[in-house]
Amino acid sequence: MAENDIEIEGLEREGSGLSETKLSFKEPLLRSRTNQTSQIAIVGANVCPIESLDYEIVENDLFKQDWRSRKKVEIFQYVVLKWTLALLIGLCTGLVGFFNNIAVENIAGFKLLLTNNLMLQEKYFQAFTAYVGWNLVLAAAAAVLCAYIAPAAAGSGIPEVKAYLNGIDAHSILAPTTLFVKIFGSILGVAGGFVVGKEGPMVHTGSCIASLLGQGGSRKYHLTWKWLRYFKNDRDRRDLITCGAAAGVAAAFRAPVGGVLFALEEAASWWRSALLWRTFFTTAVVAVVLRSFMGICKGGKCGLFGEGGLIMFDVNSTKAAYSTADLLAVIFLGVIGGVLGSLYNFFVDKVLRAYSIINERGPTFKILLVLTISILTSCCSYGLPWLSQCTPCPPYLGDQCPTVGRSGNYKNFQCAPNHYNDLASLFFNTNDDAIRNLFSSSEKEFHLSTLLVFFVAIYFLGIITYGIAVPSGLFIPVILAGASYGRLVGTFVGSVSDLDTGLFALLGAASFLGGTMRMTVSLCIILLELTNNLLMLPLMMLVLLISKTVADCFNKGVYDQILVLKGLPYMEAHAEPYMRNLVASDVVSGPLITFSGVEKVGNIMHALKITMHNGFPVIDEPPFSDAPELCGLVLRSHLLVLLKGKRFSKRRVTTGSQIMRMFKAHDFAKAGLGKGIKLEDLDITEEEMEMYVDLHPITNASPYTVVETMSLAKAAILFRELGLRHLLVVPKTPGRPPIVGILTRHDFMPEHVLGLYPHFATRSQK
Amino acid sequence: MAENDIEIEGLEREGSGLSETKLSFKEPLLRSRTNQTSQIAIVGANVCPIESLDYEIVENDLFKQDWRSRKKVEIFQYVVLKWTLALLIGLCTGLVGFFNNIAVENIAGFKLLLTNNLMLQEKYFQAFTAYVGWNLVLAAAAAVLCAYIAPAAAGSGIPEVKAYLNGIDAHSILAPTTLFVKIFGSILGVAGGFVVGKEGPMVHTGSCIASLLGQGGSRKYHLTWKWLRYFKNDRDRRDLITCGAAAGVAAAFRAPVGGVLFALEEAASWWRSALLWRTFFTTAVVAVVLRSFMGICKGGKCGLFGEGGLIMFDVNSTKAAYSTADLLAVIFLGVIGGVLGSLYNFFVDKVLRAYSIINERGPTFKILLVLTISILTSCCSYGLPWLSQCTPCPPYLGDQCPTVGRSGNYKNFQCAPNHYNDLASLFFNTNDDAIRNLFSSSEKEFHLSTLLVFFVAIYFLGIITYGIAVPSGLFIPVILAGASYGRLVGTFVGSVSDLDTGLFALLGAASFLGGTMRMTVSLCIILLELTNNLLMLPLMMLVLLISKTVADCFNKGVYDQILVLKGLPYMEAHAEPYMRNLVASDVVSGPLITFSGVEKVGNIMHALKITMHNGFPVIDEPPFSDAPELCGLVLRSHLLVLLKGKRFSKRRVTTGSQIMRMFKAHDFAKAGLGKGIKLEDLDITEEEMEMYVDLHPITNASPYTVVETMSLAKAAILFRELGLRHLLVVPKTPGRPPIVGILTRHDFMPEHVLGLYPHFATRSQK
Repeated sequence: MAENDIEIEGLEREGSGLSETKLSFKEPLLRSRTNQTSQIAIVGANVCPIESLDYEIVENDLFKQDWRSRKKVEIFQYVVLKWTLALLIGLCTGLVGFFNNIAVENIAGFKLLLTNNLMLQEKYFQAFTAYVGWNLVLAAAAAVLCAYIAPAAAGSGIPEVKAYLNGIDAHSILAPTTLFVKIFGSILGVAGGFVVGKEGPMVHTGSCIASLLGQGGSRKYHLTWKWLRYFKNDRDRRDLITCGAAAGVAAAFRAPVGGVLFALEEAASWWRSALLWRTFFTTAVVAVVLRSFMGICKGGKCGLFGEGGLIMFDVNSTKAAYSTADLLAVIFLGVIGGVLGSLYNFFVDKVLRAYSIINERGPTFKILLVLTISILTSCCSYGLPWLSQCTPCPPYLGDQCPTVGRSGNYKNFQCAPNHYNDLASLFFNTNDDAIRNLFSSSEKEFHLSTLLVFFVAIYFLGIITYGIAVPSGLFIPVILAGASYGRLVGTFVGSVSDLDTGLFALLGAASFLGGTMRMTVSLCIILLELTNNLLMLPLMMLVLLISKTVADCFNKGVYDQILVLKGLPYMEAHAEPYMRNLVASDVVSGPLITFSGVEKVGNIMHALKITMHNGFPVIDEPPFSDAPELCGLVLRSHLLVLLKGKRFSKRRVTTGSQIMRMFKAHDFAKAGLGKGIKLEDLDITEEEMEMYVDLHPITNASPYTVVETMSLAKAAILFRELGLRHLLVVPKTPGRPPIVGILTRHDFMPEHVLGLYPHFATRSQK
Repeated sequence: MAENDIEIEGLEREGSGLSETKLSFKEPLLRSRTNQTSQIAIVGANVCPIESLDYEIVENDLFKQDWRSRKKVEIFQYVVLKWTLALLIGLCTGLVGFFNNIAVENIAGFKLLLTNNLMLQEKYFQAFTAYVGWNLVLAAAAAVLCAYIAPAAAGSGIPEVKAYLNGIDAHSILAPTTLFVKIFGSILGVAGGFVVGKEGPMVHTGSCIASLLGQGGSRKYHLTWKWLRYFKNDRDRRDLITCGAAAGVAAAFRAPVGGVLFALEEAASWWRSALLWRTFFTTAVVAVVLRSFMGICKGGKCGLFGEGGLIMFDVNSTKAAYSTADLLAVIFLGVIGGVLGSLYNFFVDKVLRAYSIINERGPTFKILLVLTISILTSCCSYGLPWLSQCTPCPPYLGDQCPTVGRSGNYKNFQCAPNHYNDLASLFFNTNDDAIRNLFSSSEKEFHLSTLLVFFVAIYFLGIITYGIAVPSGLFIPVILAGASYGRLVGTFVGSVSDLDTGLFALLGAASFLGGTMRMTVSLCIILLELTNNLLMLPLMMLVLLISKTVADCFNKGVYDQILVLKGLPYMEAHAEPYMRNLVASDVVSGPLITFSGVEKVGNIMHALKITMHNGFPVIDEPPFSDAPELCGLVLRSHLLVLLKGKRFSKRRVTTGSQIMRMFKAHDFAKAGLGKGIKLEDLDITEEEMEMYVDLHPITNASPYTVVETMSLAKAAILFRELGLRHLLVVPKTPGRPPIVGILTRHDFMPEHVLGLYPHFATRSQK
């Protein structure tokens, strides 16, 4: 249809108030359309089938019966269990976070010690070999885990969790193997010297733990407690996984409030104040667990695990008043930080596209890519410090400088005794220690050239590392690059501004985080909790606001970019402008298959076989009603359970009461993705195919509906706000079949809509 | 209808899947029902008419035309203006907050100095008279302002703002006079020695400022800029007022992040992440404004305004590890704090009910009540310190103790030189200073008896003060009572726990706040920002969790209680359980008035006259359609504008295109409550009454609809999540009129539903 037609039609409709002619003309076309958007997406580094989650309460007769018969004690059990699960999620995530830290500190510490000792004996080549070798072994282990066991564990995991909480389910996202690989892959990757963080993976780990605990009553483990049936729905799982994501951030940064806000601002798509309350509890548990275990480890009982294992930086900002020059410097920092942050996103996008070509060729190629990056990173971190001159140790540090025979700052590297290599303090260290050094307030610790070399190297290493088949968080690379950038600026403007350079490093990190991730309040709180100093709040807010605003002019946040790249059909909270020019019936895709209230088994089997639809409208016809009318919606998974029960009848009569006696509501509870009854599990005889089954007991009699002339924008908002999976479109005029079509998540995707109406795409670009 | 009938009907329906008989039987009954819930509510201390706000986009032809013709530059203007308004809200609220502080510190400081000087001369009775006199004058001024100029300014204001953000509008809530009285009444009330805070009033003030700025383009001031028309809708106003509420908290506590979280957790009913971003900007502006002005005031240039004018308490908690005894003490504190907090709510409720009888009798009675409470408070704060013994000044304080000739701690009161009265340090001081003293870490500053007397007095003074006709925040009374309770407990358990008593006071305040207000994350952040110490986060979280949980067993949060008491129809985010047993058509109230697509002017005038409905369904009938069909919904305010334009036609034809040429979309923009065209403003002749007007251009053609058999719970969730004002109920079966009824906010109120089906009330009590 040409663009002009639409325009004229629009005007006609406005003039006459009648759209009837247009609609009846369109309908035959409509029925033959199918949705072209993909039902699969890249999860981690591999392609997976995806499904939508369903947050609507299925109000069928069975639910109502069950709901009425619920006793007070069952409701109490439910509440207690939900809190218990929140507690368990907090405990487990806290433990994993602590274990992760101990493991990384010990493995990386041992590696650095070994290399350091060899260097002290001036065996520089052996030291290099040992260093690269260790890193390669660790990288290979991580890559093998990731490539062969759980490809979904690659990458940050935050985009996947975000997608899950938006209602997109892929079995592999939160599977137990993913959890396993995420934990160990992340430890190996971070300890292996990659420029990756453990924060994204911790969020994913927390969500996996929540998902596993929430599915506790699985058939596989024969744990089907009566009260666990309440959790067999997507709403409760969503709540638990939100708690898990918050717990992940809390464990990674030791930032409980930051975790809650991260879940709210970045992860969750739906939020209730009850959830605030529950995530807060979970992160509080994480904070307590971490605190207790750090207390236990205090006396050096945990190997090389030191005080700073869990990040807690000390930034000095005793200055309470800022001069105009300070503010100008900070604004400058924010603007450039925003530009560099959005550039970071741009490069990450390009690199991911390039890597996906390599990763597609199979696990071997994935591992080779990982090894290449590992060697490159090792070469940088061992090689670049040689460029730097040696600095004499400041006398007031005494024994602390240079660091000999233990992991720490002020690396001796190739220098003479009582000298240290400032670039090695950054490169030849764990990422956490490097950040601590950058944030430290000693004025003259780093040369300008050191900071510049480190900044450029880390900026590009961070970009090329994300996307390899290793669990890799984005926070730490961005903080590292941002902090070195900030310290660089701070050293530059040191003559006009008398703010501390460590504070500049912190603000630089904030500007980079704002520029890439586009979060505000949660980043602010996380950074404040990391540095334990509320006095720099106004400056931090200013920098975050500026860098986010600047970066928003260029591109989307890095997680949103990755979502698009992976093909995950993320529903935005707002409707796209062109949707106001379309109505609901413009985008429904066919063919539509409906069932009668009492339907022949053969028809149902046929429909289930030929389509992959997950919801079918049920229409009551005479003699069960005066005229065809919409009875409701029945879900594929419920149909399968009903058919498996084989409560069929020879004649076309309602047998609802028998079915109600045979089934309980929790028989229809949602199993994990891929775990429910499959069509192949059914064994229906030829004779049974000719029999009838009453669908009324399992039909959701209150599905949300929109009239076909409802604007697509408003339908999208309804769909998104209520977290629906199916939205029924009913006709406006009487005398037509009682249902026009079903809208699903894919029908609202820009690819689908703009595929049908390409002129909107060109127009919106104008 | 007896309870049994429902049960049997329910079972029948389940059995047969048919509900037709029931519906057709019910319908005649339905039409004659009217909604009994009140359209008025108590705002402040007086009764006001209330209206619902409408967050739905009215997608009529005019809107669509306007929307299509919007240029890029206009969208840019809109965005810039919205950010500018957020900036202005932050600036103004920050300024008001600062002015408020200076005024209170100076007035109260002068009063205390005067009394103190008289006492130093041992003129105790004169001092008493001066003290009581000053307080009475200030109280009378506040009460007169409140009783005569803006009764809506009485009380905290947070419940009203919360109601507004839930979609309930009463003109007086955010009127300019309310703003004026709120600012000055709050200053007078706080300076007048009442046990009230300025935090609630600051939230209300911020919201009023936001509302005024958002309405900037009012006809009254002849400021109708073209771009301001975009703000003439409830959605944009809601956003601005959310920013205002956040700015209020930020200004009151100097807690920018706390302000954002307060808006999110307590104030706002709808939240988008874009809003997080905007509120964050607003509160950042407030923080910067406060900081700059405090910098200006540093050198004593602002009279008695000292360092601590804006609360920023210093609590000492260097201890990083807690023993089991510490934790047990803290848990004990939390539990009792929760009980006392919920008891506080209980008493506030009773007192409010008693006061409303007095307040109803007229302004004079209101003022008398205020004066009585003022005298009582003055007597307590002047009289009770006499009970306390004098304590010798600790020698290390030197000049600081006793405080002579200036406002400060260590009041000399009636004591000999070099002695101070510890109870006077609490009572005979501003509330902020009293809190600072309670939070201070000196071990032996307060006797046990002192704390006990202060706690009991403040607990009950706080309860009897809320509800008088003075702007009165609840935060400070609760913090005062909680801090003294916490210090009391801390002094008691001093032998087993070695936590600081100042820390105990802080935790006590947290437990009381959690017990009365039932917020969690926002309180936590506000307290952390107040005390600038993140190390006590885990303990604070623990206390808040415990006290909220304990208090939730007894009653609702204090703001929710006040909402109920005031009769504001607040829509909860979740549906009540009994709503699952009802369907949409069960509660719609009649009589329903509908219009034709082209309607006779006289009919419209008649309908507008006889009902106060704000929305009317428009039904297209032959010859405009084949059969009667629902065209959409038209709003009362739009009808009035259309009728005022007098674009009528003699015959029954569509004249949409003419109307479209005559009107612009912004002619129909929503004016402030009470500011739009009224029915009396119309001057329609007898002849015109017989003419026709085409309603299509102003009919919202995409109203949200539900089928009559939709369960009421799901309809309520739809209504609440999308922020609707009208929800159309359409019939399920063909061949009936195309609309069954309209659901509005009042139809979902428990009073209405349980009034129609009283047996659910009795059942839910079981």
